[in-house]
Amino acid sequence: MSTPATPVSPPLKDELDIVIPTIRNLDFLEMWRPFFEQYHLIIVQDGDPTKTINVPAGFDYELYNRNDINRILGPKASCISFKDSACRCFGFLVSKKKYIFTIDDDCFVAKDPTGKEINALSQHIQNLLTPSTPFFFNTLYDPYRDGADFVRGYPFSMREGAPTAVSHGLWLNIPDYDAPTQLVKPLERNTRYVDAVLTIPKGTLFPMCGMNLGFNRELIGPAMYFGLMGDGQPIGRYDDMWAGWCTKVITDHLGLGVKTGLPYIWHSKASNPFVNLKKEYKGIYWQEEIIPFFQSVVLSKESTTVQKCYIELSKMVKEKLGPIDPYFVKLSEAMVTWIEAWDEINSPSSKSAPAAAVDASASSKKK
Amino acid sequence: MSTPATPVSPPLKDELDIVIPTIRNLDFLEMWRPFFEQYHLIIVQDGDPTKTINVPAGFDYELYNRNDINRILGPKASCISFKDSACRCFGFLVSKKKYIFTIDDDCFVAKDPTGKEINALSQHIQNLLTPSTPFFFNTLYDPYRDGADFVRGYPFSMREGAPTAVSHGLWLNIPDYDAPTQLVKPLERNTRYVDAVLTIPKGTLFPMCGMNLGFNRELIGPAMYFGLMGDGQPIGRYDDMWAGWCTKVITDHLGLGVKTGLPYIWHSKASNPFVNLKKEYKGIYWQEEIIPFFQSVVLSKESTTVQKCYIELSKMVKEKLGPIDPYFVKLSEAMVTWIEAWDEINSPSSKSAPAAAVDASASSKKK
Repeated sequence: MSTPATPVSPPLKDELDIVIPTIRNLDFLEMWRPFFEQYHLIIVQDGDPTKTINVPAGFDYELYNRNDINRILGPKASCISFKDSACRCFGFLVSKKKYIFTIDDDCFVAKDPTGKEINALSQHIQNLLTPSTPFFFNTLYDPYRDGADFVRGYPFSMREGAPTAVSHGLWLNIPDYDAPTQLVKPLERNTRYVDAVLTIPKGTLFPMCGMNLGFNRELIGPAMYFGLMGDGQPIGRYDDMWAGWCTKVITDHLGLGVKTGLPYIWHSKASNPFVNLKKEYKGIYWQEEIIPFFQSVVLSKESTTVQKCYIELSKMVKEKLGPIDPYFVKLSEAMVTWIEAWDEINSPSSKSAPAAAVDASASSKKK
Repeated sequence: MSTPATPVSPPLKDELDIVIPTIRNLDFLEMWRPFFEQYHLIIVQDGDPTKTINVPAGFDYELYNRNDINRILGPKASCISFKDSACRCFGFLVSKKKYIFTIDDDCFVAKDPTGKEINALSQHIQNLLTPSTPFFFNTLYDPYRDGADFVRGYPFSMREGAPTAVSHGLWLNIPDYDAPTQLVKPLERNTRYVDAVLTIPKGTLFPMCGMNLGFNRELIGPAMYFGLMGDGQPIGRYDDMWAGWCTKVITDHLGLGVKTGLPYIWHSKASNPFVNLKKEYKGIYWQEEIIPFFQSVVLSKESTTVQKCYIELSKMVKEKLGPIDPYFVKLSEAMVTWIEAWDEINSPSSKSAPAAAVDASASSKKK
């Protein structure tokens, strides 16, 4: 790893949580220290709750393991996956902040073509704080960026854009491929730095990866449910995809925007394609029916909030995807439980913050 | 200008025409010599037909002036604009090739970030010969490019993509801005080289610029009509926009793809923003109604060819846009005339090629 750069002035320091799902010591944070140290971390410990996860000194964090999740949510804890990075959405639930950045613990700091370390978080914040353009395509990409604008022929009435709900970042080195592609192209690395941020147009679905993702929790939080994956479930590695499909149809319905492109992180290590194949294979054929389903979703005018949209969507999932496999009936019920849990934890009358197993907010925070 | 590079082996040499609308001597071709010299050019001379346009020696070309257009099309020549680069579509009409590349005479060879001259034509050909992905968004951009692929979560049934009808290239240096943006940002230059080609998703409109454009004439040619602009018309600088809107709704209907991004050309000189404002101002407010119109277009199942789609669209234009201004009634009639002219010139029984004013195909071609 390179020498940490000089810490930057942190925007939205008190309005953003960094959510990290993990099963191991968080040594990877050393590399991110100059960029993350002044932010609050929410660590969701997956797997064995008796294991101790080491967090490098100086970070401000709270940590939740499975026992905490069960204690805080009670029976509703059933909606939070176990032994799968889908558990990260518990961190979204208990955050009290407006913005979330979530990152995997095998993601390192990437460098731009000039060799400069990329502050991924800062770029996500920039993406989230500027509008999106979902209603018409701008051929010079993000028109709000320095040196860019709307091109000739872009309707002036659409130039205010839409509030940005999601910022989807990309990965250099190991690309986010499915198991079959991993198996076929074991040596392929992503070396192409594409210097662009763009809005995914309204009506278009995309494969959302949870590795390097920012979002506005107030605008879209309740749709960022990562489904039922991993332990006891017939499927894995579709948690972020599920969240992405649901999120996109809801942002489209509510007139919000989703951006993709910059920032890049450095994805260090490919996961085992044979293990992945076992996790994915049902998803690979189910998605052939799931995608047309999501492409056909039309939410009602009555669904004016993310929660209402999500509940309406859960009913459609039961009705339209239930016939594929009983799993989707269970998933649709978990979607409802998730919204109940969200509303319970996030109601104005709930306590200010659930008690974490480890709360290093005060004790170990390096000033 | 830099020293011309070594000529490259030209793909599709006998299947592609380069169409150039112009009012001046074509000295700009010197810079393109290594890339264009082995292709056939169709030059559409705008303005005074008695003026002689000089073409650098060694290029294989045919040239049409207004007298030729009137002679070849007779009364149907009314659909071809005069004193506006919209006249370029006459070149599309008389071409006998499968592919078209059209470029403005103020566009020079751009360089990539390594300093290498960009063979724009070669990149367009690559774009046109590989499929598009209009039905689902791929976050790593063009999945058919070296070093890229479909990412996790991309449905396998959609990985064959769709035939590519259009390749829309971009511009370094002078961006393609409307007059108001030119006036507000006179010094803005596009210096960002975005190393990406992407498909504009189905259902999404975009502002198509005619400066640097490739297309498959067999797949979409009859939709590439650049409208009534310039002399005697209330509007200019919307020729390529009109073609883009029509083309996109028709490619969407027919299951074809439209790509944008690479290649870049170097756009040398901004046109006069005051003159542009005079040409554009009606378009600027009309487009506020035109875009919603095109966004609402649904073509019938009976429209199974580009010609049928275009005739159906012309009727919708008359009905829905006619009330805005009598210009749109005239335009809708010109759309029908254009298709009649297309079918006449391109029918199997028509002569092999209309006689051009200057045909340098045999005489001056440098071998």
